[in-house]
Amino acid sequence: MACLDCNTCSSDPAAVQMLAVAEANNIGTAWSRHAQQQPQCGFGTTGLCCRICLKGPCRIDPFGQGPQFGICGADRDTIVARHLVRMMAAGAAAHSEHGRHIALAMLHLSQGHLHDYSIRDEEKLLVVAKRLGVATEGRDLMTIVRELADLTLHDFQNQNYDEPCHWLAASLPAPRLKKLGDLGLLPHNIDAAVAQSMSRTHLGCDADPTNLILGGLRVALADLDGEMLATELSDALFGTPKPIVTTSNLGVIKRDAVNVAVNGHNPLLSDIICDIAADLNDEAIAAGAKDGINIIGICCTGNEVMVRHGIPLATNYLSQELPILTGALDAMVLDVQCIMPSLPRVAECFHTKIITTDKQNKIAGATHMDFQEAKASENAKSIVRMAIEAFKHRDPRRIQIPNITQQAIVGFSTEAIVAALATINAADPLQPLVDNIVNGNIQGVVLFAGCNNTKTQQDSAYIAIARSLAKRNVLVLATGCAAGAYAKAGMMTQDATRQYAGEGLKSVLTAIGESAGLGGPLPLVLHMGSCVDNSRAVALATALANKLGVDISDLPLVASAPEAMTEKAVVIGSWAVALGIPTHLGTVPPIVGSDVVSQLVTTTARDLLGGYFIVETDPELAADKMFAAIQERRDGLGIQTLAVAPIAALAAAKRPVLPARLT
Amino acid sequence: MACLDCNTCSSDPAAVQMLAVAEANNIGTAWSRHAQQQPQCGFGTTGLCCRICLKGPCRIDPFGQGPQFGICGADRDTIVARHLVRMMAAGAAAHSEHGRHIALAMLHLSQGHLHDYSIRDEEKLLVVAKRLGVATEGRDLMTIVRELADLTLHDFQNQNYDEPCHWLAASLPAPRLKKLGDLGLLPHNIDAAVAQSMSRTHLGCDADPTNLILGGLRVALADLDGEMLATELSDALFGTPKPIVTTSNLGVIKRDAVNVAVNGHNPLLSDIICDIAADLNDEAIAAGAKDGINIIGICCTGNEVMVRHGIPLATNYLSQELPILTGALDAMVLDVQCIMPSLPRVAECFHTKIITTDKQNKIAGATHMDFQEAKASENAKSIVRMAIEAFKHRDPRRIQIPNITQQAIVGFSTEAIVAALATINAADPLQPLVDNIVNGNIQGVVLFAGCNNTKTQQDSAYIAIARSLAKRNVLVLATGCAAGAYAKAGMMTQDATRQYAGEGLKSVLTAIGESAGLGGPLPLVLHMGSCVDNSRAVALATALANKLGVDISDLPLVASAPEAMTEKAVVIGSWAVALGIPTHLGTVPPIVGSDVVSQLVTTTARDLLGGYFIVETDPELAADKMFAAIQERRDGLGIQTLAVAPIAALAAAKRPVLPARLT
Repeated sequence: MACLDCNTCSSDPAAVQMLAVAEANNIGTAWSRHAQQQPQCGFGTTGLCCRICLKGPCRIDPFGQGPQFGICGADRDTIVARHLVRMMAAGAAAHSEHGRHIALAMLHLSQGHLHDYSIRDEEKLLVVAKRLGVATEGRDLMTIVRELADLTLHDFQNQNYDEPCHWLAASLPAPRLKKLGDLGLLPHNIDAAVAQSMSRTHLGCDADPTNLILGGLRVALADLDGEMLATELSDALFGTPKPIVTTSNLGVIKRDAVNVAVNGHNPLLSDIICDIAADLNDEAIAAGAKDGINIIGICCTGNEVMVRHGIPLATNYLSQELPILTGALDAMVLDVQCIMPSLPRVAECFHTKIITTDKQNKIAGATHMDFQEAKASENAKSIVRMAIEAFKHRDPRRIQIPNITQQAIVGFSTEAIVAALATINAADPLQPLVDNIVNGNIQGVVLFAGCNNTKTQQDSAYIAIARSLAKRNVLVLATGCAAGAYAKAGMMTQDATRQYAGEGLKSVLTAIGESAGLGGPLPLVLHMGSCVDNSRAVALATALANKLGVDISDLPLVASAPEAMTEKAVVIGSWAVALGIPTHLGTVPPIVGSDVVSQLVTTTARDLLGGYFIVETDPELAADKMFAAIQERRDGLGIQTLAVAPIAALAAAKRPVLPARLT
Repeated sequence: MACLDCNTCSSDPAAVQMLAVAEANNIGTAWSRHAQQQPQCGFGTTGLCCRICLKGPCRIDPFGQGPQFGICGADRDTIVARHLVRMMAAGAAAHSEHGRHIALAMLHLSQGHLHDYSIRDEEKLLVVAKRLGVATEGRDLMTIVRELADLTLHDFQNQNYDEPCHWLAASLPAPRLKKLGDLGLLPHNIDAAVAQSMSRTHLGCDADPTNLILGGLRVALADLDGEMLATELSDALFGTPKPIVTTSNLGVIKRDAVNVAVNGHNPLLSDIICDIAADLNDEAIAAGAKDGINIIGICCTGNEVMVRHGIPLATNYLSQELPILTGALDAMVLDVQCIMPSLPRVAECFHTKIITTDKQNKIAGATHMDFQEAKASENAKSIVRMAIEAFKHRDPRRIQIPNITQQAIVGFSTEAIVAALATINAADPLQPLVDNIVNGNIQGVVLFAGCNNTKTQQDSAYIAIARSLAKRNVLVLATGCAAGAYAKAGMMTQDATRQYAGEGLKSVLTAIGESAGLGGPLPLVLHMGSCVDNSRAVALATALANKLGVDISDLPLVASAPEAMTEKAVVIGSWAVALGIPTHLGTVPPIVGSDVVSQLVTTTARDLLGGYFIVETDPELAADKMFAAIQERRDGLGIQTLAVAPIAALAAAKRPVLPARLT
């Protein structure tokens, strides 16, 4: 394997340790494949390659010497914009397919077809139902569930272009809805928005980059709709996350347990696995695993069960092959999205059973178990029994589990954050947050989202930027593989707050944490859930905007995807921009071949929507740019601002940090 | 311009003539851009390039020396299959967006919102409504229209996976529906099928090439559903095509008229333009155009108005820039799909007004007029007036219209073919066709569909293959740019039948043509309509299969796309295979990088479905292979077959052709 130095691959010490095992055993990983793929195609990297029809492929010479038009006549701007819009459409399709799956499960539950699911968070269900306009007073719970499911599915069915998707309409601040509506950016139907994005990017259709990008933002908002409904209905079904203490990193794999990893994104199966695992403990023990069944999480299915049930998170996307290399992973159960097709090849070198469960997401070489919600417990038990069987085939000599774990305090849903704030001001929970933003103890809020990408050292930019912003008193939220990075790095701990938070932020996190009975500060980074749960941050921002009577674009709020990688990340970043949020990307999207498109998603977007992309690969510069954006928003609100200066300058200066004033 | 020899570019003499003008004036065309794009990327050509995530682009070394896996671990088979499925999804999205547009127009008509449309073919409406299960007896027409529109839109809305799309279920032979249903290939919802195709091809989702290709066939059948409903509802709205004599090729442009070209695919605007053109004749004459308004067609909007109204067809896809070069085209009105983004650049060199009309399909540099069905006549008049205005700015010295036209007898909808047959056997119109297939006068049927592609000489393969098969007594149907090619080449004439048809075929076409009152044979190639009208051929095949009590895969029927180019062509070919039809592609799809995928769409597809792709770039060999496939089907039916031999051998042999036995 032509692997690079493992230390340059990942900042996660457990990953580095296992990469050495991969190297020693000549087992390919994402990093060795990355090395083999170098140099990567410059046309694809800049977006100047078009494969939309069979006259092509066509390529535009970025330097202006060679061809400037595809055979059909499309120029660089159209080619770049079409590809970008298709990435957004694919991201929206992925998220909202997850959402549809949950919505259909709700519908089938209300119809009495599902016996292994229930409404675990009735309060959340009622809140959401009311918000969406479903009558709740004095009605049977399943009637409400049914109506909510129907109303949700209507967002996939509506053919009236003038009626925006229900979830968006019920969830965003009024000024933002108005702005998006005026620009024609409010989608009426998620599936239609995806199909129409594919249609308008077909050969010989939309060839106006501005029109294309606006169309892309429309499907991006459809993605947000899909994410919202996926998250909120999942909360109703499986419970809304509350703070819980758990652990993270590869050390969560137990030598003496049957280790079952759940990997992917959709909690419909993994949540049931968590339910039934204890029932099979005896079978595991009988098979020789004295610690019984040990469920661990990977990627966003990992985040789903981590924030709801405190299931330990083994690792995030890029290192998902590595748990197998410990020799102690007995099964990896896969659902959808961000699952490496290489897993069966890696597992072949060990005893690990790789099990796909979604009929639209199989992998050549894996074992497929067609998961059906109507037989959820039965299916889940069969799967865990496969793991117990595989356990018997372990080779004890090959077991090497890194002795690395970190504590992680997780489960900070919007509701959980508000509940913690309510311990300070029950009548008006957001007021303490507002006060501390106004007085400058909290300069602003950053949401870290997105993926891992082999183009940067795994997790390191997350860590560097978060530390830099936290030191400048920016409140840090995280989802998805960002959350995984922070959990593994020990940044979801009270110690991290003590060590890395600026004085103002520290005082606020401490006051809230103590008031909420944590006996110390909140963790430095608040884990809001999986990547589909980015809608939680939108809910928080909307609550703040509504309280202040402003738009989201007025808030000192930034988003960051330092390792943006998937089409889902592209579409999340796009709706963040559409909502008015300055959004950092730490990897360069394939648009640099078009000045027009680059301009559209930065300058023009800012003029139209308030949000814009900040593309910056250097973590410190990225932190500075985001902090500057926060200060600009504070300025706009007329609240105390800091002179924008690089962190080095700030560290030297005596900053005017006011004492906590929380009540 | 680095143009090739014009004669190698196109077999159309009018195109060759105008290409010389382009060359002389240094105006870029698709052909010069093709030349500039050489050499084209081998990774893209073979499908071994993946740009689905931002870790990439990744490329697989086709020769096995370099990287064999993308960074995520996807192998060549997964990479090729995902790209192919996305092409199918985009094709389905394009066709069905066209269909949705028509279905919504029907709905709005039934609601009284559209005053410039009506049900022109009530008989067709009632036939279709009955087929779909809408009660018709004694009911108000608009109530039927409303229910039919609702039922049609349900195919974009249905969330019950067990309920297949209505149009498919009502239109395919029972054995084919059963086979497709058993394989899980019957889509329940067009938009969902598109979105789910995008979702399952997202990073880390489906990585099983077989599962992917089966998923692709599902979205391909969703495409067929969208095509069916687009065609049949268009017939109800605008009339079902009947045989009509018109002309084709660039000579249809008139020096002394205001020439307005309609280009794209959707008849909603172009049909109204045909309606109102005469109203503005006086304005055109007043502006100096003594021949008034001259509407001409390009590409498939051209086919739509050609088969319904006899509007002359100027040209097909690849040569759509050339009418502008005549210096006498005053406006080109664009709707959706296959419209070259280069048109405004070419028009800049002349006086021609380029007008986009669909808000999702703008072109930088064109004039946009937001067409709304509720103001259809008003919008259409404004557009024609733009052409009259542009006419005033013509430079007479630059006018050079090729003096080349061909007669074309067009308008062979399934209904028109059956009506012609009914003149022979009113009680059982299909019987004469069956008899002549059985007795060998007609060996089989070939449907030519699809596009133009710069990778071959424009139109030439169409002509060569059709002549070769017609000589062997194969009945030739054509749609889309295939139909355009035949119209321009004079192959939709009675003379062509006399010249090129084998004796058996000639006797049948003559008997039908004379019985139907054409005073001679039917034309050699029957023009069935635009590319979305390929569903007409399915209707004919279904009628034949039902009559014989067999499946479509049993019929001596082949399809051919000698210049397959768009994603729509890819998806049409795919559903043809799914229906059991041997389907020729004359351009090589980007799948040759994967033996597994190549095998799946040929051998495996044949085993599962009866249909399969025949990829053959040589026209004569392609004709031989299709003829062999026809003979194999005849064998299967136990009817008289010919020894399969190349055409050269056949020409020398004395073939046993039976006399016509039509009644």
